[in-house]
Amino acid sequence: MAHEKSIGITVKKADDMPEWYGQVVVKSGLADYAPVKGCMVIRPYGYAIWQRIMDYFNGRMGKLGVENAYFPLFIPESFFKKEAEHAKGFEPEVAWVMNRDESQEKLALRPTSETIMYDSYSRWVRSWRDLPLRINQWCNIIRWEVSDVKLFLRSREFLWQEGHCVYESEKECDRETIMMLDEYEKLCHELLAVPVLKGKKTEKEKFAGAHYTTTIEAFMPDGKALQCGTSHNLGQGFSKAFNISFLGKDGKMQTPWQSSWGFSTRLIGALVMQHSDDKGLVLPPSIAPYQAVIIPIIFEDSREKVLKKAIEIRHKLKDMRVFLDDRDQYTSGWKFNEWELKGVPLRIEIGPKDVEKDQVILVRRDTGKKEPVKIADLNEKAAELLETVQSDLFKKAQKFLKDSIVEVKSWKEFEKTIKSKKIAKALFCGGVDCEDNIKAKTEGANSRCIPFEQKNVKGKCVHCGEEARFWTYFSRSY
Amino acid sequence: MAHEKSIGITVKKADDMPEWYGQVVVKSGLADYAPVKGCMVIRPYGYAIWQRIMDYFNGRMGKLGVENAYFPLFIPESFFKKEAEHAKGFEPEVAWVMNRDESQEKLALRPTSETIMYDSYSRWVRSWRDLPLRINQWCNIIRWEVSDVKLFLRSREFLWQEGHCVYESEKECDRETIMMLDEYEKLCHELLAVPVLKGKKTEKEKFAGAHYTTTIEAFMPDGKALQCGTSHNLGQGFSKAFNISFLGKDGKMQTPWQSSWGFSTRLIGALVMQHSDDKGLVLPPSIAPYQAVIIPIIFEDSREKVLKKAIEIRHKLKDMRVFLDDRDQYTSGWKFNEWELKGVPLRIEIGPKDVEKDQVILVRRDTGKKEPVKIADLNEKAAELLETVQSDLFKKAQKFLKDSIVEVKSWKEFEKTIKSKKIAKALFCGGVDCEDNIKAKTEGANSRCIPFEQKNVKGKCVHCGEEARFWTYFSRSY
Repeated sequence: MAHEKSIGITVKKADDMPEWYGQVVVKSGLADYAPVKGCMVIRPYGYAIWQRIMDYFNGRMGKLGVENAYFPLFIPESFFKKEAEHAKGFEPEVAWVMNRDESQEKLALRPTSETIMYDSYSRWVRSWRDLPLRINQWCNIIRWEVSDVKLFLRSREFLWQEGHCVYESEKECDRETIMMLDEYEKLCHELLAVPVLKGKKTEKEKFAGAHYTTTIEAFMPDGKALQCGTSHNLGQGFSKAFNISFLGKDGKMQTPWQSSWGFSTRLIGALVMQHSDDKGLVLPPSIAPYQAVIIPIIFEDSREKVLKKAIEIRHKLKDMRVFLDDRDQYTSGWKFNEWELKGVPLRIEIGPKDVEKDQVILVRRDTGKKEPVKIADLNEKAAELLETVQSDLFKKAQKFLKDSIVEVKSWKEFEKTIKSKKIAKALFCGGVDCEDNIKAKTEGANSRCIPFEQKNVKGKCVHCGEEARFWTYFSRSY
Repeated sequence: MAHEKSIGITVKKADDMPEWYGQVVVKSGLADYAPVKGCMVIRPYGYAIWQRIMDYFNGRMGKLGVENAYFPLFIPESFFKKEAEHAKGFEPEVAWVMNRDESQEKLALRPTSETIMYDSYSRWVRSWRDLPLRINQWCNIIRWEVSDVKLFLRSREFLWQEGHCVYESEKECDRETIMMLDEYEKLCHELLAVPVLKGKKTEKEKFAGAHYTTTIEAFMPDGKALQCGTSHNLGQGFSKAFNISFLGKDGKMQTPWQSSWGFSTRLIGALVMQHSDDKGLVLPPSIAPYQAVIIPIIFEDSREKVLKKAIEIRHKLKDMRVFLDDRDQYTSGWKFNEWELKGVPLRIEIGPKDVEKDQVILVRRDTGKKEPVKIADLNEKAAELLETVQSDLFKKAQKFLKDSIVEVKSWKEFEKTIKSKKIAKALFCGGVDCEDNIKAKTEGANSRCIPFEQKNVKGKCVHCGEEARFWTYFSRSY
């Protein structure tokens, strides 16, 4: 915890977003830079958010018949090579263990677990009775990034969940690939108040080895998209490479269809950038470790009376996640600043005059709006306000996202849109080379997704002039 | 899931415990051997047990002010070397990452996280206001074991929790080191029904770098102890090595005291060995993923009626973790065998005759005892029976532990006790050399712990004849 007022945020979000972001994450106590190059430390306040995400998602997955398991960190080199595109896709960022015994095979630290899991699946799946198989894993992932660490957004080690399913048919695999994407959208909306665009990835951007990849994309205030989760239909490529087959209901051996899907601690980065402001974090009530903080305003002659009432209020709000900050060693003003920095949605102030009036002062973190509330009405009012804050944050972000999308008709408009830090919705040919060229000419704009709903796909590709295949969202990205 | 009746356990626990243990773990679906040397896969049924352990422990820790966090997998070589004994203790089993960039420092895969965490602590701890600092981490741990994998008991990668605390005073550190050991004992008793011996480790067996180590030790039916958790008072050695200091209430800079404590997925191994039998797993109700399984006995002419009643019962037992096994493709007999193998504490059979009598047949997994129960009484009776099973399993294990302890007066008795696979309680000098000699002469007996309660410590060391310092438990061990 910060110990001086001066340890607030010293730059404005609008002026220098990367610097602002780093300060917010570190000073609010979410995470810290590790002494190991490219790595981060997730501090308790950040981990509490991750824990809430895990709990929420485990609850959802339980209902859908997904079970958790744990597979090894180490992946034999030969496993990677079984699926050629997959191996090629991950090769640049794989870290290897130093062999103590030269006769043993080289071992990678998992950059993703398809290969190690499917080797086991090939022994576990025997018959249609074993399907669908739906397994999820929470674990650390290693990708040897070259660039510097960006807390939660880019680091050599991060935490994630990866789901890996096996199905009898293509149809079932299609359906559940989208079902999981919808779960991700729901999580972003309900828990993080982060609106997303949904769609398919282009050929260039799809997962190495997948049949197709679907994605949810959030859009950050600095005009960059942030991929928040992907769900892949893997087709039958991995099944064939790993010899997964099953006895069908028809009595014949068949090759199953597979899917995989994942999101990571990156979600916390999206959450921070989307809502926070120049005073620090702004947390939506659904995900906030504390939804409200009670700060008693202490004067020596009324100390006992005020503290007694503060404790009473603490008990009254037992259905909420509330922290009573009765620490003696800090002033009320210092506490106001600290809890604003930490993004607690509601502040409840109570001083001697409030006690006399049987009231508290309720302050919203997102708007700063203050209002006196009678203690008798506090439970109802605070619960109502938490819902309002949650919904207001989502609406604000959703408006920003909608206002950022520009349907462009020409390459000139496309370039202008990207330059003005918005999302270009353009007709696109889908070509990998064409997309490479777009990226080169626009300093980094790439396709984010091909929305599922496609209307009026008539005309030429916005860049190369070939026949367009679909509308596609383009923007800069994290 | 096993698909044929013949996939039951083929050896008896009393005849060949290692083979029996491997079969129970694999065939019940707890875990599997990984295709990577020395590693295991924790399957959903095993992970569900680990998840229950995590949930229970997180709940307890929340009450004690311990917060979860996450630190990097990678530890720079120089960090290890800061605490000399610690480095020496772990050197033989550390795995290293292959460097892509030769100019960078060598990185270890964490065999434990003291060093990487305390580097951060040195920046986070400034004043007495920051203390006590209590942080816990759930993560994977790498120890490059030479011997073959024993599922849950010995593997190159396993899951654990490690708590790391910083205190102002020795007294506080002492108190909380023991408080955490008591938490471990409570977890073993309440959740796993595994009784343990508590005490200090000898000089030879203490944690590398610790001031002293305390431990809980379970005793397995094959006459070997299993260390189930340790809690270390680290003294000030790490604080000094990592420059952790704080401004005391007296205005002077001080060196804090530290503790660390951990248990791992080994606990699942203890659970399995302690209670299970020749038919497979026996799970205590508190930890069982399913506490009861309902098996409808299906005949074609009464199918609808029986299934309807089974579903009704499922809803009635909503406060329990119940699985209704209504799968068509398996016979009732097959299901009986499978759920016995998987150790579900209660089986609830319901056939057409039971429906007519408004009853079910309740079968205990631990004793095999059957009884008809009126459906109207089922909730109460089943809840009562779960408590009885939990308490009976604990009492049985506790009797075995007590009966296994032999207070020995001579070296001859000591040798005889170890040979008969029991625990020798002996007067001991505490010497490292003496303990080495004991181990060599008895084919592996070592000290398990020095119990906290010491009475009548008068006499000579059971082995070397020097003045005894305390009573100590000795046995073979895992």
